[in-house]
Amino acid sequence: MIKVGIVGATGYAGAQLVWILHNHPKADIKFLCSNSYAGESYSDIYKNFSGHIYINCISNEEIYIQLDSIDVLFLAMPHGKSFEISKAAILKGIKVIDLGADFRLKDVTEYEEWYKVTHNAVDLLKESVYGLPELNREKIKTGNLIANPGCYPTASILALAPLLKKDIIDPDSIIIDAKSGVTGAGRSAVTNNLYCECNDSIKAYSIASHRHTPEIEQVLGNVSGKDITLTFTPHLTPMSRGILSVCYGKLNDDYSESTLLQLYRDFYKGEYFVKILDTPPETRYVKGSNMCHISLRVDKRTKRVIVVSAIDNLIKGAAGQAVQNMNILFNLNENAGIDFPAMVP
Amino acid sequence: MIKVGIVGATGYAGAQLVWILHNHPKADIKFLCSNSYAGESYSDIYKNFSGHIYINCISNEEIYIQLDSIDVLFLAMPHGKSFEISKAAILKGIKVIDLGADFRLKDVTEYEEWYKVTHNAVDLLKESVYGLPELNREKIKTGNLIANPGCYPTASILALAPLLKKDIIDPDSIIIDAKSGVTGAGRSAVTNNLYCECNDSIKAYSIASHRHTPEIEQVLGNVSGKDITLTFTPHLTPMSRGILSVCYGKLNDDYSESTLLQLYRDFYKGEYFVKILDTPPETRYVKGSNMCHISLRVDKRTKRVIVVSAIDNLIKGAAGQAVQNMNILFNLNENAGIDFPAMVP
Amino acid sequence: MIKVGIVGATGYAGAQLVWILHNHPKADIKFLCSNSYAGESYSDIYKNFSGHIYINCISNEEIYIQLDSIDVLFLAMPHGKSFEISKAAILKGIKVIDLGADFRLKDVTEYEEWYKVTHNAVDLLKESVYGLPELNREKIKTGNLIANPGCYPTASILALAPLLKKDIIDPDSIIIDAKSGVTGAGRSAVTNNLYCECNDSIKAYSIASHRHTPEIEQVLGNVSGKDITLTFTPHLTPMSRGILSVCYGKLNDDYSESTLLQLYRDFYKGEYFVKILDTPPETRYVKGSNMCHISLRVDKRTKRVIVVSAIDNLIKGAAGQAVQNMNILFNLNENAGIDFPAMVP
Amino acid sequence: MIKVGIVGATGYAGAQLVWILHNHPKADIKFLCSNSYAGESYSDIYKNFSGHIYINCISNEEIYIQLDSIDVLFLAMPHGKSFEISKAAILKGIKVIDLGADFRLKDVTEYEEWYKVTHNAVDLLKESVYGLPELNREKIKTGNLIANPGCYPTASILALAPLLKKDIIDPDSIIIDAKSGVTGAGRSAVTNNLYCECNDSIKAYSIASHRHTPEIEQVLGNVSGKDITLTFTPHLTPMSRGILSVCYGKLNDDYSESTLLQLYRDFYKGEYFVKILDTPPETRYVKGSNMCHISLRVDKRTKRVIVVSAIDNLIKGAAGQAVQNMNILFNLNENAGIDFPAMVP
Repeated sequence: MIKVGIVGATGYAGAQLVWILHNHPKADIKFLCSNSYAGESYSDIYKNFSGHIYINCISNEEIYIQLDSIDVLFLAMPHGKSFEISKAAILKGIKVIDLGADFRLKDVTEYEEWYKVTHNAVDLLKESVYGLPELNREKIKTGNLIANPGCYPTASILALAPLLKKDIIDPDSIIIDAKSGVTGAGRSAVTNNLYCECNDSIKAYSIASHRHTPEIEQVLGNVSGKDITLTFTPHLTPMSRGILSVCYGKLNDDYSESTLLQLYRDFYKGEYFVKILDTPPETRYVKGSNMCHISLRVDKRTKRVIVVSAIDNLIKGAAGQAVQNMNILFNLNENAGIDFPAMVP
Repeated sequence: MIKVGIVGATGYAGAQLVWILHNHPKADIKFLCSNSYAGESYSDIYKNFSGHIYINCISNEEIYIQLDSIDVLFLAMPHGKSFEISKAAILKGIKVIDLGADFRLKDVTEYEEWYKVTHNAVDLLKESVYGLPELNREKIKTGNLIANPGCYPTASILALAPLLKKDIIDPDSIIIDAKSGVTGAGRSAVTNNLYCECNDSIKAYSIASHRHTPEIEQVLGNVSGKDITLTFTPHLTPMSRGILSVCYGKLNDDYSESTLLQLYRDFYKGEYFVKILDTPPETRYVKGSNMCHISLRVDKRTKRVIVVSAIDNLIKGAAGQAVQNMNILFNLNENAGIDFPAMVP
Repeated sequence: MIKVGIVGATGYAGAQLVWILHNHPKADIKFLCSNSYAGESYSDIYKNFSGHIYINCISNEEIYIQLDSIDVLFLAMPHGKSFEISKAAILKGIKVIDLGADFRLKDVTEYEEWYKVTHNAVDLLKESVYGLPELNREKIKTGNLIANPGCYPTASILALAPLLKKDIIDPDSIIIDAKSGVTGAGRSAVTNNLYCECNDSIKAYSIASHRHTPEIEQVLGNVSGKDITLTFTPHLTPMSRGILSVCYGKLNDDYSESTLLQLYRDFYKGEYFVKILDTPPETRYVKGSNMCHISLRVDKRTKRVIVVSAIDNLIKGAAGQAVQNMNILFNLNENAGIDFPAMVP
Repeated sequence: MIKVGIVGATGYAGAQLVWILHNHPKADIKFLCSNSYAGESYSDIYKNFSGHIYINCISNEEIYIQLDSIDVLFLAMPHGKSFEISKAAILKGIKVIDLGADFRLKDVTEYEEWYKVTHNAVDLLKESVYGLPELNREKIKTGNLIANPGCYPTASILALAPLLKKDIIDPDSIIIDAKSGVTGAGRSAVTNNLYCECNDSIKAYSIASHRHTPEIEQVLGNVSGKDITLTFTPHLTPMSRGILSVCYGKLNDDYSESTLLQLYRDFYKGEYFVKILDTPPETRYVKGSNMCHISLRVDKRTKRVIVVSAIDNLIKGAAGQAVQNMNILFNLNENAGIDFPAMVP
């Protein structure tokens, strides 16, 4: 059994990690860290685990004491908080999978500009591996520090990679209009995230300024071999989970829908967690699963392609992908413990 | 008092019309037609009107008998159903405000291609007036047949008109990504619109093929003086009401956000129902009102402008705008009976 | 025009008061107090009022300076906060309508036991009038300090009063099982009220210990002339607004459903805001209105009656009823400014 | 592997069965029957199964041909539809688990009165076993035809059985006020179940007349050894899944909360799927799982106990319990394939 520790276990991504790893056939949870709930029983906070989990949360300080008990450390914390604990774990030979943003952007300057934080682990950043298995599987296998992708980047990169790899669209024409459920805003007690402020209403936010923008650009730039600068608009949608990413690009040539669908099916051939559909994805069909559904339409009138992808932001966009990376790191079946379809309705 | 009749009174737009006209200081509802509920008490169907409205629904046939009792006829029916009754009413000198699509597209061929229906009132089409008061107020004043705009077009045209009027963006660069509440799908009993099929999920539909596309193009083409061909993606969002229209365009020159915001404030100066905000609109702030909120961001990195508009699809996107048109036709204060802000939360 | 001030204007009940009074034909808002938002523009906080209201919030201290500008003061604050300002206002001859709990319970000991606060205005308490117009209209007319009823008590008392007045049920048999929307939990930023903690889930809370229990018992005791002790279970329901109160009582004799429905219709004859329906009420049909819908069923098998009432907790359960009381106090039409049906859907 | 067939596979309970059995380590789905979708690919209807299930739906007639391929038949159909297929399957020695109502009520007259249908399999009814494992495990083991309990009965019986078994409450005092998610209303395309008719609203329905009443009474009567007649009020709640059952009873004696909680813990000792909590259950903590959460409060003022239970109506209230029964029938671990906690949020 792989011995795991989770830091940030009472946030939404953390709770999803606990759910998956608790059920995982090859993982054994050794500790759950939540500084704000230190000393409390985890199943008193998340009562869905009553009768399933009997662990008290530990504090940030206690992690260091318990590091020797684990093989892999999952970090689900706000940006700027992962530097010290990552260093300590890596030094001890423990694999680190960071669900936060601290090791995703390879360019330190860019990180510091977008995140307004000094990067205190630049050496680690150099050896970190971007944990999107569908594009980066080989590097993940031998990585020590996995930078688990953001939720919007996961959905958007998987939607656009085939087009850019094959030079199908003009890289300057990309617009991503993405819609997220409210778990994407985290579990902090702020007025804006109250039920009555979110229910029955939709809004765009951080228009043309969201921190996931450079992450998407970096990865798509690598895929295409060109610099990518794109427009990204995230939305807060009245639902708990899910991301729908709608991506627009100008076609370099005449392509039919069926040609492009076939290109996607070829590109993702053998990928368990990516499914190309003939019809537009709906987030309900991936909610609660690690799947990414993708489909597309060609707008012949304007020579644009519209690619739509759907994921569960907490699973393929966070905890599920983190476990997928763990499976790869430890040479398990890639879908071990995350091999369940969405539960509908 | 203006005597009004409403056809399609038990659909969602119809019910909203009843609500507004019931409260309107200068309107008097003479009949409510609903073929499927003919003979039933309106307040048994919509129990919110218990104690307020004591009218039984009439059938389609009975309208013709009752035409003489009214000054203005509101039609809230599916496309292809307004031809005969419009002719009959116009012949009698009754003003007609059609909330459906039959008299919006001036090009008959285009209408028939997109709606797959033969147009049986081409003469009327010629004299119909597109009922978007902010752009077309003078013509509405003397119109006989008002083609009330679609919900997506209302939000999208108001968002983009200032940019096209002033030649700020490249007309070939326009992408509209719009999100609608489920009332937009109507009140028909179909599996796709069941609570458990829509709750907690979002999807795009009719991508690059929605019937509101040519309507938006026609009106924006008139505004800009150029042919407009654009990409339009509608979404079904898990909320009852509201449209958020997010519009993208490539800037022809360097413009700052404040310059463009001022341009919008000037363009809509004196317009009671359009409000330019500094921050991105949220549909909850217009829900239940006839207001349109608009704001914008400039993406300097990509030289794009992103304009976001929010309306209530049933009010400014349907019944409220229809009453705004009635007010103009009958020389009332334009905001009579529709002068209430959104009720939040 | 009646000059009004509102304290607690940025809470949900406060915002509803602003909405109603802004539209009220005879009221003029003179100040809006919100200690946490003092100095901020009200329409920046509630953007639905953009273009409608141009007032900055004042602090608690500033109220005292502005008291002379008003005829009536609305207080929408947590319990224990209304004592001083009420005294000051009453001294100046200003009518006070308190939407909080401080002047509802006539028994000071009971107040202090249930609310864990010392009552600092016992003299005022003696002269306060319980503001449920349907039961207490005559006293309200001449009152100076109106204790506006709680949301659950409004729905529950209106549901049960006819049965107790007419001695139809055993007073010891009463059980009230009531369901509230999340606005009932207020606008404080607490984890429990986050969207993702409330969405798609229902729970009972404060079972047999909710503070509205003695309020319901006091009023129903007055109606029946007997001491009433009952069981009350409130619930948090995944909706923004609305209360459904389901009330159970053992019939003292054989009564048919039609007999009891007629009794209710007689009891509430002439009441504009109470409507007796043949079918079970749904909260959507009263949402956004000051109406109370009531219906009932007789369970012949168990000789029980089940009475169901529905209100909007923020309107008939708070701000709407407060304005109804203002109308009575100032001898206006009782439905002035609150005469609109629910907007459905 | 146990070979299974599912009839009614495209309804909500059916889809939940497919989800569980697809993931079940010991089950193999042989056919999925859905008369309305016969011939269509199951994963085209429920796209969450894309890449997971490759089966076309068969028609009702085809079941008979395929009966020989299975060990157990699950029926998820409206009442009155299970008679013939059950007979055919039982004759062939196939175990039948009926999620419908046809074999639950032992009294044929009662069945026909409440369901308005003639019972065409009275012989089978005699040998059917009520499939609530926590009360009936031994009989289930050797049963051939399992009548899987209704959703409301499951939640309500588990909540009340300990009190009645131990004679703690007056059996004539029982009131059950239960709240269900909208999946409980099924997947038929009817106006009442549209998103915009259910969203943001709650209602009671079938008050004192719901068909689950005699089922609850029958089972609780068996538990207590006395005839039980109770009042039952179901509600439609704006959420997709979940039942919260709030049960009221008059205490026969003074009992403390801790005494009763201990009694429940003893009663359900060793039961994997029943968990007694100190705090009131919330449906979100059991949603997507086979768990039943129960807690209680004593109302000392009225000498009543209030027991609250929460289940997922489609799992412990339908498909999960059916699989629990299958596990018992086939001598597997009782929690095989249903051993997962709720996924929160």
